[in-house]
Amino acid sequence: MKTYSITEIGSFDSIKRVTLKEKLGLTGAEVSVNRLPAGTESSFSHAHKRNEEIYIFTSGTGMFWIDGDKIPVQTGSAVRIAPSGVRAIKADSSADLIYICIQADEGSLVQATREDGIRSEQRPDW
Amino acid sequence: MKTYSITEIGSFDSIKRVTLKEKLGLTGAEVSVNRLPAGTESSFSHAHKRNEEIYIFTSGTGMFWIDGDKIPVQTGSAVRIAPSGVRAIKADSSADLIYICIQADEGSLVQATREDGIRSEQRPDW
Repeated sequence: MKTYSITEIGSFDSIKRVTLKEKLGLTGAEVSVNRLPAGTESSFSHAHKRNEEIYIFTSGTGMFWIDGDKIPVQTGSAVRIAPSGVRAIKADSSADLIYICIQADEGSLVQATREDGIRSEQRPDW
Repeated sequence: MKTYSITEIGSFDSIKRVTLKEKLGLTGAEVSVNRLPAGTESSFSHAHKRNEEIYIFTSGTGMFWIDGDKIPVQTGSAVRIAPSGVRAIKADSSADLIYICIQADEGSLVQATREDGIRSEQRPDW
């Protein structure tokens, strides 16, 4: 059985919304790639029961509304929101807002990077 | 205490490598944004102890080597690798390869999206 899976999302500019959990068989996080058209906003605000959300903005500018605070976002903004934060988002009128959203169970990460990685002696046969 | 944190990565084109766990106080996943210069490869292959890795390629073309398989990647490719998969990566000579890498504890996701979300009646005061 293969240890990996792959899918092709294509250009982010033409995406409406793609969720990767089913496509890739994810077990540790849900990941979505999203496009909010220029001048529009999320249709309702929401919070979460258990999941931390992490947003990474790859194109456009807009605004987060989190617990009443207004936070401008742009290409390269990265945001963490705890489950209880009530959030909504809107795109400026100038361009679509494109972002990756990651959901993961709050507090579930045990270790990462150097602690979790195992260096291998195998050499790729490029 | 605020339920959110934010950081500015800036343009992905000028990034070397940025990790977000410390910057944002992440507790469910480690997220990094990475740039592998054109024509170069990761300096060693590696696996993981507990973490699933999810890669999303935002620019460039290149190749994954996973357990001896060679898998072409390009803008919009999304890849899941189980902890035990031995992996390395290289960028084609034509352009830098830019990608987001997410690490999360394998099997830790309990629920996501509709199951985990709570619709709120609060309305943003844009």
